[in-house]
Amino acid sequence: MHHSSPTLISIGQHILNRLKELGIDTVFGVPSDFNMPLLDLIEEDETLTWGSNTNELNAAYAADGYARIRGASALVTAFGVGELSAMNGIGGAYSEMLPIIHIVGSPRTQYRDTHALIHHTLGDGDYDVFYKMSSMLASASTNLTVSNAVSEIDRVISTALITKRPGYIGLPCDIVNAMVLPAASLCIDAPRSPVKSLTAATDVILKEISTAKHPVIISDVGVLRFHLEPEANAFIKKSGIPTYTAPMGKGSVNIDLPNFRGVYCGAMSLDGIRLELEPVDLLIELGPIKSDFNTGYFTFGLDHVKTIVLHHHRVTIDQAEYVGVQMQELLPMLTQGIRTTNKPPLGPLVKQKPTEGGSNEITNNYLWNKVNEYIKPNSIVVTETGSSGFAAPNALHAKDNTYISQVLWGSIGYSVPAAVGAAMAARHRQVYLFVGDGSFQVTVQEVSVFIRHGLTPVIFLLNNDGYLTEKLINGPYSSYNNFQMWEYSKALTFFGAHLETNQNTKIGLEVQVKTREAFESAMETVMGEPGKIHFLEVVMPQFDAPRELEMLAEIF
Amino acid sequence: MHHSSPTLISIGQHILNRLKELGIDTVFGVPSDFNMPLLDLIEEDETLTWGSNTNELNAAYAADGYARIRGASALVTAFGVGELSAMNGIGGAYSEMLPIIHIVGSPRTQYRDTHALIHHTLGDGDYDVFYKMSSMLASASTNLTVSNAVSEIDRVISTALITKRPGYIGLPCDIVNAMVLPAASLCIDAPRSPVKSLTAATDVILKEISTAKHPVIISDVGVLRFHLEPEANAFIKKSGIPTYTAPMGKGSVNIDLPNFRGVYCGAMSLDGIRLELEPVDLLIELGPIKSDFNTGYFTFGLDHVKTIVLHHHRVTIDQAEYVGVQMQELLPMLTQGIRTTNKPPLGPLVKQKPTEGGSNEITNNYLWNKVNEYIKPNSIVVTETGSSGFAAPNALHAKDNTYISQVLWGSIGYSVPAAVGAAMAARHRQVYLFVGDGSFQVTVQEVSVFIRHGLTPVIFLLNNDGYLTEKLINGPYSSYNNFQMWEYSKALTFFGAHLETNQNTKIGLEVQVKTREAFESAMETVMGEPGKIHFLEVVMPQFDAPRELEMLAEIF
Repeated sequence: MHHSSPTLISIGQHILNRLKELGIDTVFGVPSDFNMPLLDLIEEDETLTWGSNTNELNAAYAADGYARIRGASALVTAFGVGELSAMNGIGGAYSEMLPIIHIVGSPRTQYRDTHALIHHTLGDGDYDVFYKMSSMLASASTNLTVSNAVSEIDRVISTALITKRPGYIGLPCDIVNAMVLPAASLCIDAPRSPVKSLTAATDVILKEISTAKHPVIISDVGVLRFHLEPEANAFIKKSGIPTYTAPMGKGSVNIDLPNFRGVYCGAMSLDGIRLELEPVDLLIELGPIKSDFNTGYFTFGLDHVKTIVLHHHRVTIDQAEYVGVQMQELLPMLTQGIRTTNKPPLGPLVKQKPTEGGSNEITNNYLWNKVNEYIKPNSIVVTETGSSGFAAPNALHAKDNTYISQVLWGSIGYSVPAAVGAAMAARHRQVYLFVGDGSFQVTVQEVSVFIRHGLTPVIFLLNNDGYLTEKLINGPYSSYNNFQMWEYSKALTFFGAHLETNQNTKIGLEVQVKTREAFESAMETVMGEPGKIHFLEVVMPQFDAPRELEMLAEIF
Repeated sequence: MHHSSPTLISIGQHILNRLKELGIDTVFGVPSDFNMPLLDLIEEDETLTWGSNTNELNAAYAADGYARIRGASALVTAFGVGELSAMNGIGGAYSEMLPIIHIVGSPRTQYRDTHALIHHTLGDGDYDVFYKMSSMLASASTNLTVSNAVSEIDRVISTALITKRPGYIGLPCDIVNAMVLPAASLCIDAPRSPVKSLTAATDVILKEISTAKHPVIISDVGVLRFHLEPEANAFIKKSGIPTYTAPMGKGSVNIDLPNFRGVYCGAMSLDGIRLELEPVDLLIELGPIKSDFNTGYFTFGLDHVKTIVLHHHRVTIDQAEYVGVQMQELLPMLTQGIRTTNKPPLGPLVKQKPTEGGSNEITNNYLWNKVNEYIKPNSIVVTETGSSGFAAPNALHAKDNTYISQVLWGSIGYSVPAAVGAAMAARHRQVYLFVGDGSFQVTVQEVSVFIRHGLTPVIFLLNNDGYLTEKLINGPYSSYNNFQMWEYSKALTFFGAHLETNQNTKIGLEVQVKTREAFESAMETVMGEPGKIHFLEVVMPQFDAPRELEMLAEIF
């Protein structure tokens, strides 16, 4: 946290300073007459970068991706048109617990006070309707005035940070430069556990573990969102308990720990993993969200097992709830108290089905086995709700990787802008983006923002000519599940990669590959040319699906 | 209206039949697991075409454009992710009075009843939050059940039609094929005027007109939205009163009428038009929305003049309001009662400033004068909130044209999908689309939908390298008002125009023009090759603006 003595400061600069206290260095969004006074301050601030997104939905997704890496993010849109366009992205951030601070540039106070009939309104003088809508997708929301700004800005930001949900700040464009006297730094009153409950829960859990014959841990999304990877891994390591991640929790556990075993997602787990879970008599879940796609479509199948669930702000042990016990405080207590178990190792890690030969087509079975060989450690893998999102959890294994996908919200088109945000958040890490052709069409223009900011992801456009996930559920040959074929491999070119004015980014491959040889040859080039943006259009058989997606379609 | 005897029918088919009764033959949207059962029915119905839009915002804009031509439109999205993505488009339709019937495919009833934790939810079991949000932008909204479907479908559709605002129908995917017994045809109870009020208002208005020395009529958006062009033009013609349109009302008056004079928008009117209005002593407004951009940013300047305002459901005469008097009934009464005036003609029509020579650059002054020569009668002109939207009202004059622009809502990116919708609604009419580079980036992928459906607009991409409207208001050299340059003229190619699989549309020009000669040469080709889609990237000086936009920036 940044500290300085209180001093008069403009409301706009105060907001920016608070964002910087959170470690934010990029503000995503789209300019508008209603937010340009704030954008002037961003432009003048050398420590902040303007996102320069192509539209507000893309900006919101980018903010979501950034928050997954940095813990929080900022989005600036315009009253009405802009904030409504961002709404799906904000809904996703609410659903999947990302604290986006959404600052909405709104009309000058005089217009609001007189219910003036200006652009971006419904024409009925109602200046509160969008605020009311947004409040339903925010942990806290406010319309700023000069007199409430100091307290409201801190309330919204701290609530968003504590709950890991979006916060909404309506900022009339005429008060951006009004002066206020804020506190020196943001005070976040994180909730604390009731001491007796914390002690009792610790004791009961340690006792349950000590008497269990086959305990397992499943680490899930809450560990990631509350940034408890150190606490969780310390507990997992010392305990020696076999540990899995749910799809949403992938990346939360150090895969080099001897007791890390892979991904568990019910019937959609690898067969060997399901076998390992059969004898379990104690299940310890860390920050779970038991949604359809995070549980193999409700085939989790461990309801009969005694279960301890560490939620972020409470813990349940079998049928008992310990209200207010914080995972953040409980995990270190458990680590301190646990006796290291010396259970025999469970045998070699379960691997997915090896590549089938006999074909030169780029099938999912081939692709996911092969691409795993190229993914660098400490990289960021962004996948889409579709083939890539269902395949990646079981297929990809590189150490210290971060996995980004909307497993719960599941909005197609998310991955491209989210990868922009993630890449902005971690310029030193390699980003891999896997996106299907249908999803790509939704938000394609954000590809240009990679180039604008000099970002160098490797983009895999998986072209199977249609909405495959939908075809497998309903209407495999229906025209509504098909759409216009594009010349995908020309995307970087169309978005200006080779124009003289756009020399921020080194351009690598722009290819369409249809065979395994061509794919491997392309990947050799990619490996040999880091620091460039690469675009691979991977042509796949139209109805070929990863095993997990086929299983989902069966159950659905 | 389509009539048939009542018979058992599925809820899904019943909705589709009602849409067809409204004259709807295209349903816009994006497929999803939650709406595919309805999409199956659309696919089986030979009289309906599926929009195949690239994303939900674009689908909503397309529905808006279609409704401007056909009077109503239909949009199908998915619960949560889809409906939220469409929200800005729905907001625009609410604001600018377009009855989009928005059908949201929602999860099966069992999931809702058990608050199941499925994808596209917030993860908290709340299945009503999106409905509540959408209800704020709808004239009527409902979540269908088998038992309420018959009454609720008709209530929502008829309310939308009467109010000219969107209607929201939540349709659980498991009841699409449930059977119901609806009324034979939709009954729309349009409001009627109180007879005494109607008669009294007629008398007073006729008397005011007869004693006025210099009455004028300004025809505005309400005439278009309530489809009262025949009634309005009959009145205008018989009265002989000098008549203008507001920007939003452009196209509502037959320009061949001898008393049609052009566009009035306060200080942003052509100079000669403002002079004509100076001696006015009675102003008759038909369906006005006095918003900032529809009044030359509140420079309407006729507040001192005695004013009669025909709203769609009421009329005000000076300070008196006649509640419930319908414009639809009042206009024929006025036409019947008015004595034709024989005022002398007002001289030649005011024209905008002729083209300045001495340059070969494609300035706005040049472009708008020149392009007017090429626009065919009975065509549809779609412009964007930006240079084109401000320039077109004063510049374009072809007979029987329809003008589409979001003058009130003003969401950039609207024009491309709106042009798709308008072109689907009127395949026999030529569509001209004018869009700036900044707006184009927001919704660019919808260009591919023109090609998919065999639509043949002429697309003018006005490339002035940045958000010009914003630069003129604030930050002319700020980086936030600039963005990545694209190879715009390759858009049709990138979106698959030349792929073997996409042979629905004949492809015409794909060019970048930088000089007047090149522009005129391209337009000769366009004129000589109708029935093809043409794409002209028109490179314009970076800070050159139409006169109206320069004036706006001064006032703003």
